[in-house]
Formats: sequence, structure tokens, C-alpha cells
Amino acid sequence: MKFAILFGGASYEHEISIVSAIALKRIMKSAPVFIFLDPEGDFYHIKAEDMKSDHFSTKAYKKDEKITPVRGGFEKGGLFKSRKVDGVETVINLVHGAQGEDGTLAALMEFYEIPCIGPSKEASVISFNKWLTKLYARGLGIDTVEYRLLGIDEEREIGFDLPVIVKPLRLGSSIGVSVVREQKDLDFALDVAFEFDDKVLIEPFVEGIEEYNVAGCKTSSGWKIGTIEAPAKKEFLDFDQKYLDFSRMETVAAAQLPPGLESGLIESFKKVYSDLFEGALIRCDFFVKDGKIVLNEINPIPGSLANYLFDDFETVLNKLAASLPKKRIIRPDYAYINRVHSAKGHKIGSGR
Amino acid sequence: MKFAILFGGASYEHEISIVSAIALKRIMKSAPVFIFLDPEGDFYHIKAEDMKSDHFSTKAYKKDEKITPVRGGFEKGGLFKSRKVDGVETVINLVHGAQGEDGTLAALMEFYEIPCIGPSKEASVISFNKWLTKLYARGLGIDTVEYRLLGIDEEREIGFDLPVIVKPLRLGSSIGVSVVREQKDLDFALDVAFEFDDKVLIEPFVEGIEEYNVAGCKTSSGWKIGTIEAPAKKEFLDFDQKYLDFSRMETVAAAQLPPGLESGLIESFKKVYSDLFEGALIRCDFFVKDGKIVLNEINPIPGSLANYLFDDFETVLNKLAASLPKKRIIRPDYAYINRVHSAKGHKIGSGR
Repeated sequence: MKFAILFGGASYEHEISIVSAIALKRIMKSAPVFIFLDPEGDFYHIKAEDMKSDHFSTKAYKKDEKITPVRGGFEKGGLFKSRKVDGVETVINLVHGAQGEDGTLAALMEFYEIPCIGPSKEASVISFNKWLTKLYARGLGIDTVEYRLLGIDEEREIGFDLPVIVKPLRLGSSIGVSVVREQKDLDFALDVAFEFDDKVLIEPFVEGIEEYNVAGCKTSSGWKIGTIEAPAKKEFLDFDQKYLDFSRMETVAAAQLPPGLESGLIESFKKVYSDLFEGALIRCDFFVKDGKIVLNEINPIPGSLANYLFDDFETVLNKLAASLPKKRIIRPDYAYINRVHSAKGHKIGSGR
Repeated sequence: MKFAILFGGASYEHEISIVSAIALKRIMKSAPVFIFLDPEGDFYHIKAEDMKSDHFSTKAYKKDEKITPVRGGFEKGGLFKSRKVDGVETVINLVHGAQGEDGTLAALMEFYEIPCIGPSKEASVISFNKWLTKLYARGLGIDTVEYRLLGIDEEREIGFDLPVIVKPLRLGSSIGVSVVREQKDLDFALDVAFEFDDKVLIEPFVEGIEEYNVAGCKTSSGWKIGTIEAPAKKEFLDFDQKYLDFSRMETVAAAQLPPGLESGLIESFKKVYSDLFEGALIRCDFFVKDGKIVLNEINPIPGSLANYLFDDFETVLNKLAASLPKKRIIRPDYAYINRVHSAKGHKIGSGR
């Protein structure tokens, strides 16, 4: 399978996506095509040797070949003729945050009939909006952390004892997220979160809770579940820490799990994944509280696709690419319009 | 405001969308631009005089000008130079069913920064998937009809006494929907529904329930709520009846409502609408059962935009166009990459 890695995007995670793509380039033995979506919304075909961070930060990429999505792939421009970009069999959506994880690029790839590894529109909307994630999980019978949804114009009544964690409703990568331990810090934390969204989610913050990350995907040859990781104990990963997290390449050690918990986590992961997330390699972050598994969030495009959790990452990618959900092709036959014509002897729209 | 009506699409409601656009053409005094999305995914600029159903059913439109979405509008092709299609200030998404109501075109318009009246990606996903609609409504504290979700590979255990109504999870316009009164008809009804989706929703079917349709939108000058209609009592509108429904232009009589019900319906409508559906003119179909208001479904692009429910439809359109939600523009500053460079004196991605 020939892969094209799509990265960049007009999001707060733009730089993270660049780092993530560079990490993926290093670990993939097959040579993927690199497609950069710049913040203005233009696509560029980037040469492998230019996959360095300053190629983007200095805007050197602007001299690279501009390309546009067309049915079945990408096309290079040119005044007199255009031609397909070679080697784009399956796109890997590696645009973290807005555009990549909110359903925009999923819709674009679907519209242009370009096969794509990544969350569908539906899956994106459900995982990007943290309130919808909770409604979805509860609909599946999976526990989530209790919450309060607060709008920017509402009275700042948080409804929980401190400490709480304050999150903008629709961002990833901990941007705008704060833990509030003292009443005097609450307003500032809310102000910060409202910078990013008109709605924020407030949750009780539980100290020292066990956290486990489960990544994986469903392929036609079965489930591929990565090593379960207990992330380093920090309050939560801030932006800088997450940033480093997105460039990880070393395989990690499996978490030491109490008996029964591993199968419980995997079972919960499969429930969340099926079948809304088909076609994507996702990571679910779970809390474990008094032995009970609670979904914290769904990361539908984890940093560098969580490659470090899989022994044979490229095989997983190939299996996933071969298992992308098939779309039902709908071709109208104009049966209704034709029936009206023959019955009434006139055209809809001609006269009244 | 200069409007462009976008219609057609690769959906089972393709023909309905054509009928809907023709109806809208007749009632709009301003002369909108007509953009047809054909089932293969190409856009065509249609002349107003060609807005007749057989222009599409005979594929005569294929000789019209092909156009492509670009940043800020649509462009006419041409080997030597391309130019913008004039008069496209705000697109009205009138593509019913797949593509139009599932978030694809919302994402496309958002990506290309083309102002558009219609449901956002989030709103589309929530209203297109009938299970997610229920989770959303319940999350808002609004009652819905009880249900059972059944997958194509699951045992056909319906969980309710007959009669039940069987619906494909993700279609509009009653396609694939059946009322089942006798056990012998159940398998066939499920087979039909599974033709359209791998999941179906089964609900108890209540005879003679009161149904009310409320359409409207929120604009910067307040709510615009249409006449509340009690649709003609039929079991449910089948495809042919809905078809005729999509070409309606005559203003309807208001439903005779028991005291208090009108304000209850409007309050429920506003709860569903706010603020997920901002930018769209939607119709909610409610049941009233023992005085209790129950959401049946959300129609985020009603046929011919339910123009017949508004006294001054074009004013509503203009107000809505002036109130479209503003997008936060995100332009990365490469602060992180620059910081790493100056600290480490090297570029991310150069060497290991």
C-alpha cells in the first residue's frame, strides 16, 4: 500500500502535527508521500528531504508544489495541464485538532473519494466535542466522569467542590485546560477556556487516579490492540509535554495491571470503537476508580498514530488500509421525476 | 444578500432536492444562482430558465458550465484562465439526505470558507443519525420515543410489542421505513431497512398520536419561528407523499393547539436548536402524548426550507444569512518550533 501522510491544518495543534509527521516518517520503512495543509487552506506536496520543522516555520514550503484534491486523489496544477500526484493510494489523516479531528478533512476525503485512514465525520464529531463523547459513552453503557457544561453567557456556577478541571468543549492537546484548586483561580481558568470555545466542561478533579491508554483498530483480520500504557503520573499533560509525546518512537513497556483489568480495558475500548470508529486507529484514555473503568476521552488521531505501542506498526497500517469501510454508492435513477412526467405529461418546474 | 442554491447530491433524496430547489426558485423574488451537485460529485452552474426537472433527469445539465469550489466561492474552469462565479455571497444548502444533511457539504463549505445557510458538521451528524439525535435530546432533558438499536449481524430480537416502526439509522424522507403490525411482516421490514444501513432503529408505534412540526431559526434580531403545523394524519408520510411535501409553496393554516402547548413546543424547539443548529433553518417534529412533548426527529434541511410556514420567508433568509456563526481563525505562530530551535540549536527532523 502506498501511503500519503496529510498533516498541518488550521488548528492550535498545527505544529504538533508537523512533529507527528516527522516522527512517522522516521519509523515508516515504506516511503510515504507527504502532503502539507497550510494554515490558509492550501495543500503542498513536500519532498521527503524537506520534512524538517523549519521548512514549515520559515514558510520555505511555499515554494513547493501546490496541489488540489480532485476525485480519487490530488492533482498538481499548471496552466496547460494538470496531473495526478503519484503514490497516493491511502491518505493517513495526521492533522491533529481542528480540521483533522473535527470531521472537516474526513468529509473532504469522502467527498473526493480518497481512501483515508482516520476518524469518519460521525466519529470526529463525537470525539471532538467532549460533551457528545460523554453522551455517546453513556449511550453505550460506559461510565464517564461527571460534568457540568457551562456557556460563556451563563452564571459561573460550577456545581462541584474544588479541585475541578476546566476544559474548552472542543479542543484536544490540553490547550486551555486548567486544574483549579482554589476559588481565586477559577475565574482566570474559565476566562482561558472561554478563549477557545463558547462552552466549557467542568469536571471534579480526582487526585492520583489510575490512568490507562488503550490504542488500536479493527481490521478485516481482527482487532489490533497496542500495548496498554499507564502514562507518567502528572496532573495532566500540558501542551509542552504533549508535544514531546507526539514525537515518540520508542516502544513502551506494558503497564502492570491488576488481574482482570486488562480484559476490562480492552472490552471497553472495543465497545467505544465499534463500529463508529472503523477506519481509524484511535487511543482511548481510561481512568480506573475503585476498580471501575471510566472513559476520560477518545483521541481519534493520537500523536504519530501511537506507533510506539505496536510491535509491527506498518503491518497494522496495511491491514487497516485494506479494511476501510466501504461506502454505499448512490446513483439516482430519476424514477420519480420520470413517473410524474409520464402521468402528467409535463415537466416539474415548467409553468405552474 | 445574493444567494446561491446548492442542490442535488449523491443521495436517495437527490430528486427531492431538485423539486425543492424548483419550489424555492418560484417563491424567491431575488434571483438566486443555482448550483447543481450531480451524483458523480461534479458541480454545475445552472441557468434559471433550465430549472426544470427534465433538465436533470435527461442529463442535459452535463452541457452546462462545470464549476469547482475554491477559497471564498466557486470558480469556472477553462484551460487558460479561471474566474469566480458571480453572485455567490451565501450558499443555501438544499441537498437533502446524504452529503447535504450528513455534514459533508457543511465541511466542504467551511473548508473553502464559503458562507452557507445549513446545519454545521456537528448539527448534521447529530440529526442524521437517529440514535445520536436521541442521545442529544436526552442530554438536553428532552423526551424522545423509546427505541432499540439493532445491528445487521445481531439476533432479530425487537424488544417491543407490535406494532413497531422500523427505520434505517441514517436516512431521511421515510425511505426504508415501515410500520410492522404483524409478526410475519417483521423480517421483510428489517430486510428493507438493512438495505440502507447496517443499523436500524425500532420504536413502538403509537396509533393516532398528535404530531406537530415547528420550523425556525435564530438570527441576530431574535428567533424566527414559523407557523406550527399539525401535519395531515397519515401513518407516516411515505416517499411519494414527502415528495409532494417538498414542493409546497402555499402558506399553511396554524394548528389548533390546546392552551399552553404552543409555548411548550416553541420552548422545546429552542432548546434543541441552541446553539448546535445556529446558521440553519430547521424543522423539529414533535409528538404529544398525554400532554407530554416528545421529540420525534430533527430535519435540518426541510423541503423547500419550509418556506410555506413563514409570512415573509425572504426576510428570514436575509436575517439568517447576516447571522451565520463566525469561525475563529487560527493562524499558528510556530512559537514552539522556534523555541526548540533556539534552545537546541537544531531543527526537528534533521538527523536523530
